[in-house]
Amino acid sequence: MSRKRDPKNERGDGLPLNASESDPDRAPKKFKSALGSGDSDEQSSGLDQFLPYPIHKVNRLLEPGPVLLVATGSFANKTHNIMTMGFHMMIQHEGPTLVGACIGPWDKSHGNLNKTGECVLAVPAVEMLEKVVDIGNCSGEDVDKWETFGVNPVPAPDPDFANGSGDRKGAEEDRARAPLVGGEGIIANIQCVVEDGALVARYNLWVLRVIGAWINKDMDLEYGQEDQTPGDDGGSIGGGKLRKREMNMAHHRGDGRFVVDGQEVDMRDRMVKWKEFQD
Amino acid sequence: MSRKRDPKNERGDGLPLNASESDPDRAPKKFKSALGSGDSDEQSSGLDQFLPYPIHKVNRLLEPGPVLLVATGSFANKTHNIMTMGFHMMIQHEGPTLVGACIGPWDKSHGNLNKTGECVLAVPAVEMLEKVVDIGNCSGEDVDKWETFGVNPVPAPDPDFANGSGDRKGAEEDRARAPLVGGEGIIANIQCVVEDGALVARYNLWVLRVIGAWINKDMDLEYGQEDQTPGDDGGSIGGGKLRKREMNMAHHRGDGRFVVDGQEVDMRDRMVKWKEFQD
Repeated sequence: MSRKRDPKNERGDGLPLNASESDPDRAPKKFKSALGSGDSDEQSSGLDQFLPYPIHKVNRLLEPGPVLLVATGSFANKTHNIMTMGFHMMIQHEGPTLVGACIGPWDKSHGNLNKTGECVLAVPAVEMLEKVVDIGNCSGEDVDKWETFGVNPVPAPDPDFANGSGDRKGAEEDRARAPLVGGEGIIANIQCVVEDGALVARYNLWVLRVIGAWINKDMDLEYGQEDQTPGDDGGSIGGGKLRKREMNMAHHRGDGRFVVDGQEVDMRDRMVKWKEFQD
Repeated sequence: MSRKRDPKNERGDGLPLNASESDPDRAPKKFKSALGSGDSDEQSSGLDQFLPYPIHKVNRLLEPGPVLLVATGSFANKTHNIMTMGFHMMIQHEGPTLVGACIGPWDKSHGNLNKTGECVLAVPAVEMLEKVVDIGNCSGEDVDKWETFGVNPVPAPDPDFANGSGDRKGAEEDRARAPLVGGEGIIANIQCVVEDGALVARYNLWVLRVIGAWINKDMDLEYGQEDQTPGDDGGSIGGGKLRKREMNMAHHRGDGRFVVDGQEVDMRDRMVKWKEFQD
């Protein structure tokens, strides 16, 4: 468990930060308006598959320890790359929301991250695990992994939209943001900027700040989308809420074997000390 | 994915390190000798429940993202404490094996870690999830959590034993090492020392170096114990090896809900780039 650090603490003094300084952590709780905003541009880009997700709940996506995809570079200038990553952690729930990730100089993504200071962490569902493994077993130096594996880069939406402002359609034209990872097999996309590169040289450990988050519109209602219409499968798991669709994470066992999400156990009643993380 | 960093890289310059400097990463692959070494001292301490586990395979225990217990302080001087933690990651497979963990000043364990520079990360199986949650929802300042929740502290064995030398029985008498977490519900114990405290003040992020690892003797054979006699359940999962006993991890979904290990998917054949992690 961890809780938020004093937001007045000093900022990291690592890599230069190119990213937007706007950082209102709390996203709006009502998402219905976002549902109706998909126009034809969104449909063709693939952004219509995703809804804004509250930044302060990103720990619900990362703390379980799923294998991730990482998108770097920019779709606009064709430098976009994608890799697979198992070494990551939540560092701080909010104030700001921080994530740790190991990306080394042997990854093309390392160069992109160094250059742009941005990346997107995508949580894949187990249905696309073969692609996830294959993406992790070749280099963007040798192949266009997006094309080779049929993964769609979604031009970056404006992360501020998820915070109730900005233009949903995209920030790609204004600046070279990392694309989201598109497709029905993606549970969520988390837009990050480098907060602190102090331990990159020593351990390839990047401290990332979350600036926007997007969840699959078909995703399990358990992940905080209180305002959605429940699915029609009628099932209940854990907290008793209905699921629209089962989207299970895969957890890397470190040697090429993965364990898939099984049953859920609801211990919220026993979490007397951490009620603030159950909203 | 990540791979080993150049072991010649500089050491961390964070907290003073009190721990043993011996750090042979590769543990012996044959464990049979360890099986026969349990004497009555071990049985009474609870150490006989665990076998040495290779340090360079610790990623197989942590990369899947299980909720952990953290033991700090020392059993010898009664400063031992235990807490629950969901914010952790693998940083480096070997050379040396490094782990990141968030432990903040609101945890009594933070003071212990600061003082001794040591801790034990224990991976609990889902059978003891209620205890794990309860341990995370009270403070060692208020209660003796070991006694309250019936969790047995096992006086620290010498981590060098797991590397083929040293005295299995314990290093507790020589120095104030953190105890292992005892019991049949514990999958593994990982002995760590603080490698780098550079980001502790800023993010409560500790870089830990693994100095010893111990696995439950009844544990799933998949985790690298090639030399054990298979169990008699006859089942095969993933790679096809028999399991002695099903010990599933629990992954915190961040709000008091946990997801339990489900099916295993074996992708080792597709891991063409990372064969060195399949030994």
